[in-house]
This record gives sequence, C-alpha cells and structure tokens, in this order.
Amino acid sequence: MDRLPTIEDVARAAQVSRQTVSNVLNTPAIVKPATRKRVEVAIRKLAYRPHASARRLRMRKSSTIAIRLDPMTNGISGALLDRFLHALTEQADARGIRVLLFTAADPAAEIEQIRKLRAGADVDAFVLTATFHGDPRTEWLVENDVPFVTFGRPWGANDMNNPRHLWVDVDGFAGMREATVHLIDQGSSRIGFVGWPSLSGTGDDRRRGWQAAVEERLAPGDGDLAALNLSVEDRLEDARDAVMALLESDDRIDGLVCASDTLALGAMIAAASVGRSELPIIGFDNSPVGQAIGLSSVDQTLDEVAGGALELLLGETGGDLVHRDADAGDTRHRLITPHLVIRQPLRLLAPDAGSTPTATKNAVGNHKDGKESQ
Amino acid sequence: MDRLPTIEDVARAAQVSRQTVSNVLNTPAIVKPATRKRVEVAIRKLAYRPHASARRLRMRKSSTIAIRLDPMTNGISGALLDRFLHALTEQADARGIRVLLFTAADPAAEIEQIRKLRAGADVDAFVLTATFHGDPRTEWLVENDVPFVTFGRPWGANDMNNPRHLWVDVDGFAGMREATVHLIDQGSSRIGFVGWPSLSGTGDDRRRGWQAAVEERLAPGDGDLAALNLSVEDRLEDARDAVMALLESDDRIDGLVCASDTLALGAMIAAASVGRSELPIIGFDNSPVGQAIGLSSVDQTLDEVAGGALELLLGETGGDLVHRDADAGDTRHRLITPHLVIRQPLRLLAPDAGSTPTATKNAVGNHKDGKESQ
Repeated sequence: MDRLPTIEDVARAAQVSRQTVSNVLNTPAIVKPATRKRVEVAIRKLAYRPHASARRLRMRKSSTIAIRLDPMTNGISGALLDRFLHALTEQADARGIRVLLFTAADPAAEIEQIRKLRAGADVDAFVLTATFHGDPRTEWLVENDVPFVTFGRPWGANDMNNPRHLWVDVDGFAGMREATVHLIDQGSSRIGFVGWPSLSGTGDDRRRGWQAAVEERLAPGDGDLAALNLSVEDRLEDARDAVMALLESDDRIDGLVCASDTLALGAMIAAASVGRSELPIIGFDNSPVGQAIGLSSVDQTLDEVAGGALELLLGETGGDLVHRDADAGDTRHRLITPHLVIRQPLRLLAPDAGSTPTATKNAVGNHKDGKESQ
Repeated sequence: MDRLPTIEDVARAAQVSRQTVSNVLNTPAIVKPATRKRVEVAIRKLAYRPHASARRLRMRKSSTIAIRLDPMTNGISGALLDRFLHALTEQADARGIRVLLFTAADPAAEIEQIRKLRAGADVDAFVLTATFHGDPRTEWLVENDVPFVTFGRPWGANDMNNPRHLWVDVDGFAGMREATVHLIDQGSSRIGFVGWPSLSGTGDDRRRGWQAAVEERLAPGDGDLAALNLSVEDRLEDARDAVMALLESDDRIDGLVCASDTLALGAMIAAASVGRSELPIIGFDNSPVGQAIGLSSVDQTLDEVAGGALELLLGETGGDLVHRDADAGDTRHRLITPHLVIRQPLRLLAPDAGSTPTATKNAVGNHKDGKESQ
C-alpha cells in the first residue's frame, strides 16, 4: 500500500462496517469479543493509526494552522474566543507553529475557505470553534481527510465517537455544578439559574449542572426548578429585567448562578436595583470585565483548551490507541474541567452612598456572616 | 537600474540629503523652491515611488501580512487591539489577504520573528501596534526595506516624516476635545480629566484635547487645570479611588472625561458611591463593556484604522505623491478623527432602589434638565 491505511481499509480487511471499527476504537466494550479481536488484528496488520493524518502534520512544511475569526461581537462574554485565540497563538508559537486567520460568513463559506487554503498548501490543519449539531464543516473535513480539531463538542450522537473528529471542550455541567455547590456550602438554599433559551448544547449543559446540584443537595419542591430557571438572550438588559422580576416575585432567593458573565452582570444590576446588592452571584467565563468588577465566575481554563487542541492535532498524546480504557487515555477528545474563581466583588452597585468600598461585607466568600435574607 | 529606485538614489541624483528628499515629499513648503524643483526633477527622472516596496506587495505570492498578538490583557479597554485584529482580518480577507499571527516577548524578539518570517518568504508585510518613542522595530524594518505599517504614530520627531514609515493613528486630541466640548454644550462648566501618568504619547495627546477645550471654552482659573487633572494607572479601582477623592474635595465638578472606558467605569462607580450617579461621564475606546452599560465614549473607528492601514500598505491611495499639498492627499500617514458616541446610561449605579431602569433622567444627552449640582 503506497498510502497510509484508512478506517475503510481496516473495515474491509476485518469484514465489518466502518462503524464497527469506530466502535472498537472508541467504545470497545459494546463490540462482541470475536468481532473486536478481528478488527484489532486488522488494525495491527495494516498498522492503521487513527491519527495518521494528524501525525503527518509534523512533517509538513507550512507549520501553519488556520482558524476563522468572526466579526467582533459586543457584550462581555463575547471576547471568549479572542482569549482562546491568544492562548492558541502563544502555545502554537511555542511549538514553532503559526496561526493564520481567515473570515467566513457561514459554514459553507468556511468550507470554501478551507478548501482554498488546503489547495494552496498554505495550511496544515484547522481549528474550528462554535460547533453545532449537524455541523457540515466537520463532516466535510472528515470526508476530505483534512486534519482538524474543534473547540466544542459535536453536540450530536454520531460524531461523538468518530476517531477522526478530534475535539476539546470545557465541561460546563461540572463548572456550573461546582458553582452551585459552592453557594450551597456558603449557606444558600434557594438558587436561581440565569441561562439562555434551550437551543445551544453549551447552554443546556450548564443548566443541567445547576439542576444536578440543586436536586442532589437541596431537595427542591414541586415546580421550584421551573420557577428558578430563567431563559434570556445573552444581553445585560435582558438578564437585568428578568432577574429583577424574579427577585420581586420571590424574596426567598438567596443565590444566582449564570451561564455567562454578561448575564451575571445584568443580575448584579437587578439585585442592586431591588436593594439586594448582597445577593451572591456567580457568572461563567471569567471575563476580563468580571475580573475588573470582582465577579465570581467559572473559568474555562483556555490555556488548557488551547494546549489540548494542539496536543490532539499534533498527536502529542501518544499511547496505544487500540488497547485502552474507553474513559481513560482518550487521545481524540478532551473534556476539560473548568475551575471556579471566587472574588470579593467591588462595591459596584452601592445603594448606601458614602461608605468606603473596602468596608463591604457583601463578598460571595463571606456572605454567611452578612446575609440579610432568611 | 535593475532595481526600484530608493530615496537615496533620488538624493544622490538631486545632490541633496536624504532628509531634503523626505521634506520635499512630506513638507514641501519648508524646502527652498530651487531645491524642491531639483528634487522633483530627480524623482520624475528616476520614476521614484515612495511606496515602491509596498506596491510590490500586490505582486507577491504569499498575500499574507503578519501581526504580533500579545498575551491577553485584562481590563475593559484591553480588548482594543483584539477589535482592531477583527477589523484587519475582515478587511484583509476582502482583499484576498491572509493575516498570520505570531508572538514575541519584546521588541528584539519581534524583530527576530519578522526576520524569520521574511526569510521563509511566508509574509509580505507586517502590521505593528503599540508604537513608542525610539521604537527599534520600525527602525529595523526601514533599514531592511521590509514593507510595514503601524497602528500608532512614531511619537518621535525623526520618523514623523519618514516616507518609508507608513502609519495610521487615531486623533486622540480631537476625540477628547470633542467629548469635553460636548459636556460644555450640555451645561457642564467644571470638567475633570481622568488619565494615565504622563508617560505615553497616546495618553498625553488625549489629555491635551481636554485641556484645549477647557481653555478655549471655560476660561479656567489659576490652578484649576492642575486640580481637575487626575493621573492613575488604567485600573478600575485606581480610577474609582482617585475620582472619589476628587469629588469629595470638590463638589462643583459637573462632568468627567476619561482616557479609557476602564477609567470611566471606575469614575461611574465613584460618582455613585458619593451620591453623584447623575454626573455626566465620557470614556474613550467605546469598549463592548461601555456599550453594554450605556457609557458614552469616544469610538476609535477601528474599521477605518484597519482599512487605512491596508490602503497605505497596498498603495491603494493612488494620487501623485510629489505635487500635493502637505496637509491633503497624504499617502503615507493617516490620522483618523474618532467620533463621539453618546448613550443613555443603564441605571447601573442606582442609589434609589426600585424605580424602573427606563425612567432614569441621568443620561449624558439630557442632563441639562435633571442636573442637581451647581
């Protein structure tokens, strides 16, 4: 064979479907032992490496990866992908790899750009962001054997176990669960969630983290979860209005977790407006703005995300791809656990004028002492 | 001549110094008519084009420009260069040009990166940001005949008229002057300035804009300018503390202009903390955060900056480079006038809890009606 073996070659040699080979690679436990054995023999015989195309990357000349840069979005959490780009550029540079930027108005245009960049041999591999269910870009990249990695899960069942779809993502479920548990540990017992309408995999994942913590630790009553669950667009004003209405209708609420720092800042404004500036609020993304105003937030550890993306792409993870546990040593996917950053909030929203900012006791970290409600 | 003529060739042919040729190109009015004539003849005879190297860019193969991306900075105005990068990538893409990113810890490392990228013929030209007085990078680029453009003036006397140093910058003086005049037109008569310590050309330029407006329109008393002029690092807390002290010591202050949105947000917090949430405040940079909270601000029109940088680099400006007025049709430098964006502030800092956010009358645009001070 004068080319590297593909997953199809393995399937043909083992007389199984492509999906079965994929299952052996990803979830060997669900494959019948005899079939698994046959596939593993074929893999070894053909010296098939799921990462072959990615591994070739090291030998290519351009040493360049490309990523789409979208028009600037406004808002507070909007800079997340910029921060990822900074981390990616820095870590790529440390490996002697350049980052090339391009723009594209939609997925079809992005595919066309990728095609051109590949044709010109200017770019070895691609980093994709903002993945979504049924994403045509990743499908095209797999079909055309273009090395790529996504920041974001496929959010669809089929690609989840595709060994040719490398991805890194942040475990929003775990992050929001930790934030909620933190508030419970600090004394909160009725915690609202401010998230986005149920459209995005990312947003729903974060919502489930809040829900899991509340169900595990607080034993909510009938209808409580629905009553405490806000869905608004990622705009400060929308969050402010929704939270203000919630706080006015329910004075027992003693904590809020939010799917973004934008929403959290809106929530802070709402809380101050109804005389509840002490209300503990935690955001998500650990944005520069959140840092500036002392907002507690879930940090996506973008350095880890960028490092993970490059490691997967460059095949730096090593390890035997066949004989491994399904949950450990995964060299194709990386789900990173974010970490909670707790801050003393700036006395941004001050209903009592005149006192010095350093005298505040409304920090999330110590609200057990100074809490007024309940 | 088997190469494109240089400024030195023109100087030799006209028997003048290189500086004189530069003067003829940039400030012809200061050159004696006879000398000017001689230089213009040499320029025409040699068919010298100051932009020769940049014009060559069109013919080169890589169609790639490179820009350094620094590690992420925190803060609110810190995303300015990210927003410039978005605009640059979008406008470059529209011209079929790619943007390549690299990192560098200091100017020497940046020069080394540029040298490598040029050696590999991967990059046709460079965009530099954060220029400073005595910048070794631009000196090196000029010496090595590498096409480049800077976002930022040289801030030094010598390079100002160097036809080989293309630059685009934003007229901070004009922007801050306009912001100050706006407050005066709206009724303010004692306007403070919150800026950075006098180290940066950019910051001093903005400070002079405030000062000019105050001197022209308000006839300040002895010591007033000094008393109203705050210098703090670009940190929200620092601005908050300094502005709080200023407002507590001087209750006649009825307006603030700030060198950045970070400083302006700190000023807003300070104003609210001393019961002055109606105080009109204008920032600089029109940051996403400022937009989210309804802060009035001076917008740097980064689309124009990016477009201008590319036009200069690609020699798209056209026109006769010799016979032109010194102030009009400059094809090497572009000083862009920013524009003031006036917003109704979100009722972010609400001393009176409970009223609806839309009912506020504290907007900059109409503070003549609702002003309490004076």
